[in-house]
Amino acid sequence: MTTPRFLLQHSSSECRARCGEVATLHGVIKTPVFMPVGTQATVKGVTPENLVELGAQIILGNTYHLFIRPGHALIREFGGLHGFMHWDRPILTDSGGFQIFSLQDLATITEEGAGFRSHLDGAKLFISPEDAVHVQEALGSDIMMALDTCIPYPADRRQAEKATALTGRWARRCRTAQSETGQLLFGIVQGGMYPDLRKQAVEELVDIGFDGYALGGLSVGEPKELMLEMLAQTVTHLPGDYPVYLMGVGTPEDLVEGVYRGVDMFDCVMPTRNARNGMLFTSSGRLVIKNSRYRDDHRPVDEQCNCYTCRHYSRAYLRHLFQSHELLACQLNSIHNLHYYCCLMADMRRAIREDRFLEFRKAFYLQREQNNH
Amino acid sequence: MTTPRFLLQHSSSECRARCGEVATLHGVIKTPVFMPVGTQATVKGVTPENLVELGAQIILGNTYHLFIRPGHALIREFGGLHGFMHWDRPILTDSGGFQIFSLQDLATITEEGAGFRSHLDGAKLFISPEDAVHVQEALGSDIMMALDTCIPYPADRRQAEKATALTGRWARRCRTAQSETGQLLFGIVQGGMYPDLRKQAVEELVDIGFDGYALGGLSVGEPKELMLEMLAQTVTHLPGDYPVYLMGVGTPEDLVEGVYRGVDMFDCVMPTRNARNGMLFTSSGRLVIKNSRYRDDHRPVDEQCNCYTCRHYSRAYLRHLFQSHELLACQLNSIHNLHYYCCLMADMRRAIREDRFLEFRKAFYLQREQNNH
Repeated sequence: MTTPRFLLQHSSSECRARCGEVATLHGVIKTPVFMPVGTQATVKGVTPENLVELGAQIILGNTYHLFIRPGHALIREFGGLHGFMHWDRPILTDSGGFQIFSLQDLATITEEGAGFRSHLDGAKLFISPEDAVHVQEALGSDIMMALDTCIPYPADRRQAEKATALTGRWARRCRTAQSETGQLLFGIVQGGMYPDLRKQAVEELVDIGFDGYALGGLSVGEPKELMLEMLAQTVTHLPGDYPVYLMGVGTPEDLVEGVYRGVDMFDCVMPTRNARNGMLFTSSGRLVIKNSRYRDDHRPVDEQCNCYTCRHYSRAYLRHLFQSHELLACQLNSIHNLHYYCCLMADMRRAIREDRFLEFRKAFYLQREQNNH
Repeated sequence: MTTPRFLLQHSSSECRARCGEVATLHGVIKTPVFMPVGTQATVKGVTPENLVELGAQIILGNTYHLFIRPGHALIREFGGLHGFMHWDRPILTDSGGFQIFSLQDLATITEEGAGFRSHLDGAKLFISPEDAVHVQEALGSDIMMALDTCIPYPADRRQAEKATALTGRWARRCRTAQSETGQLLFGIVQGGMYPDLRKQAVEELVDIGFDGYALGGLSVGEPKELMLEMLAQTVTHLPGDYPVYLMGVGTPEDLVEGVYRGVDMFDCVMPTRNARNGMLFTSSGRLVIKNSRYRDDHRPVDEQCNCYTCRHYSRAYLRHLFQSHELLACQLNSIHNLHYYCCLMADMRRAIREDRFLEFRKAFYLQREQNNH
């Protein structure tokens, strides 16, 4: 068993929402938290200083991409990801598993590990559970993820059982392979859409003992209700004194619903990807900046927002930049969207501390509805 | 005649290099100065705060582009370019003439003005000298340029005479059209590669009286020696108490040679465009960041540079970003190159103040030569 690095501070008296702190080598993360995605050792369109200003506590790096380019050995030489990319707050790296499965049709899964091809040059590559840990140790991430096998949706029972069992055996090998670096290691709960498999998966991972538990294989195409149902059921089986991480999710609504059901950590490319496509998140819903209604709109993106973009620029200017394909459009939109996500989490933490999370959740939806009329 | 807004402070005892100050509505510019180009109401890849930090005193906006999109009437509503783009230091706008001639084959020049087509949607547009001034007044630039007609290289005598004479008549109409806004207006010296036409052009413009004089139609394909020769000759005819602006030039070497010959102001897209293509300027010459020799190079781009990029990032990281097509590559490279240009100008100002410009110029070339061996 491992010593919990999670300090539970407040729990809602009305639902599973909770506040806490995760202690890492690069400092403490206040949860619930959203992690901006920095796939290739940079969060697209923003500087580390932008991230600090907009309130990012921790970012995520993608092991698959960094393993392929520029390589973990190179990054280790530069003091790990932190030194390489000039970021001194915590970093979580995924295991590479999800990218191996999602970026290519022909990943070859054996008991030993995952064979795959580089999306850059087609080179044949292989990663074992031990490799996944050693690569992440070289990257120097604060939170590492055990290598898992992903289960597509829909998947038949037999397929889900097999993948879940293999994920369990790989998880044990990851834990064993880990060196004493002080980096945390999270296990990933698979099980497809089968509640009993999810429960078994949790039991096996808890038996191994991890520093936190991630929910994998959700938001992979299943209906939203099913995702939330699987999430809620799985969380009830997890030990209460470890952080719970819902991988790759999601919309602002997903974050609220995740926290409501007991999730502590989230990551998603949505704020930055949508920013580059001109879709901005606001307290009253989504705003598509290229819309001609914003042509001479003097207002900031969100009048309730205090981010760098909203403090200095009008919707009209942002529309002009987007229409003109200017780089600054990506920068300003990304800053705004990431700020929106980080603020939403801070607002939820405050609501939980003050034990008014259900009220917060109700107001969150009400504000959107009012603006849709 | 106009009251000089140029305060000459130091003149080299050995050449025409000089230091001074240009007083504008948004503050004083110390010359010689380089103006980063912000074509579409943004300097590509950098924020206004980046520009202030890297030492930009004044930026340039392109009237042609802004006239077409989003339009000067809209920009006026937002407090001019300054309010629209969140920049409170001086701005110079060109007249649109150069873009009209260079972006299309079929500009229709008449006595009245220039007919052209939008490069965005092919719409037929027309701009008179009076329009050019009124558009720039709406943009609220601190320094406006008179509408000129460009002369290609090579051009026969007859063609150069005609265009130069028309530029003179247009310059007079621009001056007459100007409102009392406190914005400065510069005339543009054409004349092709004919020294006597250049001299005539200067005389006509000085007779009209402008706040500064720009050298147009240089660096348009002629040999470098001819450009420098035309520049040197033309400067000798200009009144000494007005700023001299060499438009659209150039390389670091061009800036040194321009200052040596008496130029006070420069603009060029080179630092930002080359940055986006991965070419970085350093005190010892040019550096192509994608080169594999930088793969594990821990050094900053330029060990003598104190810019944000060089303070925090290695060549290896910048190479990785460039190879990975990351937005941050454009941002960091642009910051570095613009900082290099602004620092070069600051170094030249210091050398002139200390009356050691020739020594500076010699050392500038020596450092490059040493590093090429």
